[in-house]
Amino acid sequence: MIKINENYLKLQDSYLFSTIAKKVETYQKENPNKKIIKLGIGDVTLPLAKKIGEEIDKATQEMLKRETFKGYGPEQGYDFLKEKIIEMEYKKRGIEIQIDEIFISDGAKCDTANIQELFSDDNIIAITDPVYPVYLDTNIMAGRTGNYNKTTDTYENVVYMPANAENNFIPELPNKKVDMIYLCFPNNPTGTVLKKQELKKWVEYAKNNKSIILFDSAYEAFITEEDIAHSIYEIEGAKDVCIEFRSFSKTAGFTGVRCAYTIVPKQLKAYTKQGEEISINKLWNRRQCTKFNGVSYITQRAAQAIYTEEGQKQIKENINYYMENAKIILEGLKQAGYEVFGGKNAPYIWLKVPKNYTSWEFFDKLLEKANVVGTPGVGFGPSGEGYFRLTAFGSRQNTVEAMQRIKNMEK
Amino acid sequence: MIKINENYLKLQDSYLFSTIAKKVETYQKENPNKKIIKLGIGDVTLPLAKKIGEEIDKATQEMLKRETFKGYGPEQGYDFLKEKIIEMEYKKRGIEIQIDEIFISDGAKCDTANIQELFSDDNIIAITDPVYPVYLDTNIMAGRTGNYNKTTDTYENVVYMPANAENNFIPELPNKKVDMIYLCFPNNPTGTVLKKQELKKWVEYAKNNKSIILFDSAYEAFITEEDIAHSIYEIEGAKDVCIEFRSFSKTAGFTGVRCAYTIVPKQLKAYTKQGEEISINKLWNRRQCTKFNGVSYITQRAAQAIYTEEGQKQIKENINYYMENAKIILEGLKQAGYEVFGGKNAPYIWLKVPKNYTSWEFFDKLLEKANVVGTPGVGFGPSGEGYFRLTAFGSRQNTVEAMQRIKNMEK
Repeated sequence: MIKINENYLKLQDSYLFSTIAKKVETYQKENPNKKIIKLGIGDVTLPLAKKIGEEIDKATQEMLKRETFKGYGPEQGYDFLKEKIIEMEYKKRGIEIQIDEIFISDGAKCDTANIQELFSDDNIIAITDPVYPVYLDTNIMAGRTGNYNKTTDTYENVVYMPANAENNFIPELPNKKVDMIYLCFPNNPTGTVLKKQELKKWVEYAKNNKSIILFDSAYEAFITEEDIAHSIYEIEGAKDVCIEFRSFSKTAGFTGVRCAYTIVPKQLKAYTKQGEEISINKLWNRRQCTKFNGVSYITQRAAQAIYTEEGQKQIKENINYYMENAKIILEGLKQAGYEVFGGKNAPYIWLKVPKNYTSWEFFDKLLEKANVVGTPGVGFGPSGEGYFRLTAFGSRQNTVEAMQRIKNMEK
Repeated sequence: MIKINENYLKLQDSYLFSTIAKKVETYQKENPNKKIIKLGIGDVTLPLAKKIGEEIDKATQEMLKRETFKGYGPEQGYDFLKEKIIEMEYKKRGIEIQIDEIFISDGAKCDTANIQELFSDDNIIAITDPVYPVYLDTNIMAGRTGNYNKTTDTYENVVYMPANAENNFIPELPNKKVDMIYLCFPNNPTGTVLKKQELKKWVEYAKNNKSIILFDSAYEAFITEEDIAHSIYEIEGAKDVCIEFRSFSKTAGFTGVRCAYTIVPKQLKAYTKQGEEISINKLWNRRQCTKFNGVSYITQRAAQAIYTEEGQKQIKENINYYMENAKIILEGLKQAGYEVFGGKNAPYIWLKVPKNYTSWEFFDKLLEKANVVGTPGVGFGPSGEGYFRLTAFGSRQNTVEAMQRIKNMEK
């Protein structure tokens, strides 16, 4: 008899975005004349840069000719792209990354989801709260958590590290030993960052406890302030204890193109139960070679285009556009009397909902009174209750109008 | 302390293709004037069809304009592609597939590798021998096998079903109860097929034993004979017990483009330990939504182009080209005195190596005497010993010349 992986049954149905969609749909049906502005989902809206289109055309032409046609590529990605990443993302910041420490993939979501396969089921995971749900859900599926506790909205055997206004969004080091630590900075959903001095504490914790840090820096391109690490490897010793996940999704508008990369330093070690050291880089390479067949050649050429002078200029214009939106949202919300966080080094603005509102109640109010859609913070974890996320990925016009409406709503 | 998934340590290092590459490199260095013909790796060589290039261009143009730009797509794939697959691959053969039973992915390798996550670790798997290594390796990694036995070249707790000349490449039904049955027809590596009557026995076995069949039909487009199922769903009742994996890799030369699809019928059930029925379709949907972010929009438009009249004509020309190569290889080997299998409904030719040769010894002979590279059968499993694989994916000229050389070698 074919038996299922019963860990899947522990998953709570992820109603967040479908509930939002249904609420919006219902409201729109009942109010067909209202123009709803959506600042909820973290998806880009500006088109691909022209230079990227040119490189896609060129690569497509190669695929149409026998002499230049490309079949299976390396599972780890083509050197032409890996070399550019090393040069432009790491070498420029004084970080040495070797070519076989980079793995190109079709998304940071996949990589942050798949990485846990390398590790034993009895490792203890630690996540910040609120959190990008993929880190938690993939560990539930793998059996690395206990059951769901409805009262606390948490899973057994998981260490939750709250990040909220009270601790200035600086999560505390775990007070028990943990093995796998998921960190995402600039953070999704809060848009907040950690200074280098803070990150250093985590690297030290990992070293002292032989833990591993799974560092998601998908939003590093949005950093505008000094003293914020673009890469975890800016912190001394991080290559001994950290895997870094990067993505072109938000950096270059690739959410519909699919390309990302993960750095697994060769000095990174994990252990057998007998205490024997094993190279994580080798394990990940074996995982990717067995379960993945590389990223589309055309897509990798598109990603390479980002690193041309023209490409860099064009994607930076787009990032600036979004960050100008973020500024407008931050200022607009402040003027309307809200307490706001994030938005300076990330395309996400995290606001405190007014007293006596839950984050879902505030969602309803915003939809009905201002016709603006955002995301209730509690959807990202129990410590997200009382908060609300808006994204800077809308059009300028919609962003400005949304703020006007929110200000009017508060009058 | 971060502990590894020790199941990875059970994996035998996959030296097959790297050993081949090294042997070829050494030989070429020592014999710089010899022109080596490679008929080893199963990768296509003909360029993409023109119509596919046109659709890539069109989709790229959409991505360059704000009004038509596409960000995140559905994790399950776009309806425009799924509808075409339903119509052209299934409805035409009298099979009803619903739109939420199809999942578009970036490769059948990924899907056949990931599907096992849905099932409990204590299910017993059955594989044909020889076999595409991904089925076995992913189950080793998940802990669904015991240790490797060097003497028998097999893993404990795995049911191996030999397919060889003695049983006419018709594997026998397992003599013990198994839960997950991997079948690939037309077969990689042997190129052989099962008639519908034979497949029916497997569907019945699965029904009687509440097992599930994981049916890989990545090579169905190469079928030329009657009475061979293109889809497992041509067999009555198969939707109750079968998942089907399909790919554009060989069908349309997409090995470097990356697009495939998997059918998970909604009536397909697996069980909890308590015997409760669970929908596998829902589990797979949850898996894909959590760990995958959909296939590139441009790639999905490229795949859709295959289903235009022009696209169909162009990809069929390519398949015919490869199958003409297969014919040349089959006839050439027969004339040279070899016993040959496959090659009529698949781009793979499986030959019996001469007596007193192992498949690796024959590899060396062929490289040295004919300067032709193929794949030793034992690389695909213990029952592959004594056999050798050649592929029909080379150029016409090379294929013809390789056969001439082999004939001369045998004189």
